[in-house]
Amino acid sequence: MRRVKISFQYDGSFFCGFQKQKTAVTIQCVLEQAISKIVGHSVCVHASGRTDSGVHAVCQVAHFDIQNTNITEDNIVRGVNTVLPHYIRIMDVEFVSGSFHAQKSVKQKTYQYWCYISKTENPLLFKRALHLNKLPNLDKIREQINHVVGLHDFSSFCAANSGRTNFVREVFDLKIDQKNIFENQFLIFTITGNGFLYKMVRNLVGTLLEIGYGKNFNIDEILKKRDRRFAGKTVPAHGLYLTSVKY
Amino acid sequence: MRRVKISFQYDGSFFCGFQKQKTAVTIQCVLEQAISKIVGHSVCVHASGRTDSGVHAVCQVAHFDIQNTNITEDNIVRGVNTVLPHYIRIMDVEFVSGSFHAQKSVKQKTYQYWCYISKTENPLLFKRALHLNKLPNLDKIREQINHVVGLHDFSSFCAANSGRTNFVREVFDLKIDQKNIFENQFLIFTITGNGFLYKMVRNLVGTLLEIGYGKNFNIDEILKKRDRRFAGKTVPAHGLYLTSVKY
Repeated sequence: MRRVKISFQYDGSFFCGFQKQKTAVTIQCVLEQAISKIVGHSVCVHASGRTDSGVHAVCQVAHFDIQNTNITEDNIVRGVNTVLPHYIRIMDVEFVSGSFHAQKSVKQKTYQYWCYISKTENPLLFKRALHLNKLPNLDKIREQINHVVGLHDFSSFCAANSGRTNFVREVFDLKIDQKNIFENQFLIFTITGNGFLYKMVRNLVGTLLEIGYGKNFNIDEILKKRDRRFAGKTVPAHGLYLTSVKY
Repeated sequence: MRRVKISFQYDGSFFCGFQKQKTAVTIQCVLEQAISKIVGHSVCVHASGRTDSGVHAVCQVAHFDIQNTNITEDNIVRGVNTVLPHYIRIMDVEFVSGSFHAQKSVKQKTYQYWCYISKTENPLLFKRALHLNKLPNLDKIREQINHVVGLHDFSSFCAANSGRTNFVREVFDLKIDQKNIFENQFLIFTITGNGFLYKMVRNLVGTLLEIGYGKNFNIDEILKKRDRRFAGKTVPAHGLYLTSVKY
């Protein structure tokens, strides 16, 4: 038996999220089927975490175990990519020790949330970034952004139906960048932490955007309430990208 | 009667090209249907030029005539965008003189061709840019690129079935840029001219890429041959973007 660590990318708009479902095409289903074809037996793929329907990954990590120890790392990359649809691609394969676990061994994860500012929607950014009609006040957002960083109980930013009992997470860094990429003006939130609750990034970004548009929210006070109803709206999944997982 | 000039964008991967067809979804069909619904009568949309199946537009221009002179420019933008699918969006509407013709009045057009260099395909760039496994030799490409600029007979770079008789076009500028956008290494060809023959940009880029990978092509000699068989391969449509049309 050999434990295999894979890094992969996907366009989340083609999948009903990560987790296996009986009647929907999910990333886990598609990956497990493709890998099974190449290694010759069924496998169970464990990712660093689930992503919701519509969320993209620039770098997601997972592990699985294989019985065939003759196959090389390169053969797995090439073979599995031949079988996978174009909306998902393995970038890298590494044989790791049996103690590695893609979810339990995570030290740090980074997500980005992409918005763009434009009078009209850009069809080339459809399902890829959130369309904003006007630029929010970035000074107001930056005043509040530092209150997110640190070890906090993030209950107020966790979707009500998460099924979690421990809401404490540490956010190492949160920044907002304005970038012009060709004709497009982007606003990009980058958040790094030891882990994130269900919809936590989308709830944080939604609240910060409302602050930028003039809503009188105070992140400190919202955190203290430990109640989802005190935070802002959830932004849609399609602007969210998992960009890095570190072990 | 009023002549209306529109600027619009589209993701070409959802359409069978620009030109109206009886049995396929094209940009012209979708636009004409949407505009007709808003202005209350059928219209004929004339674009600055056709784009092939898969080719994108960051800025395409067209005109059409309307009978209703009460509707405002803003009403057309908003109304038509409500009816259009997300893969196509009108950015701007302007009422112009009846002498304006979206195709015949063109002074200059710019196209970009996007490639990215990566060990594996990036699913988020699928149908958006050409995947290259390794960087071509840019010095070799730049040596030849200047021979494209100027007034030439571009027969050698025109698809055989174009039906054209005049193959002379003027290329005002052609450059190749290397850009890193986040983790992705892009190579972008930008070409500006007074007009382009059928598949001319894709044939030029294909030939220049082959030069960059070591093929002993000479642009001057290829131009002199006036024969498509002497130029390089056609690169796929999905890396091509119409980025500007000037009048």
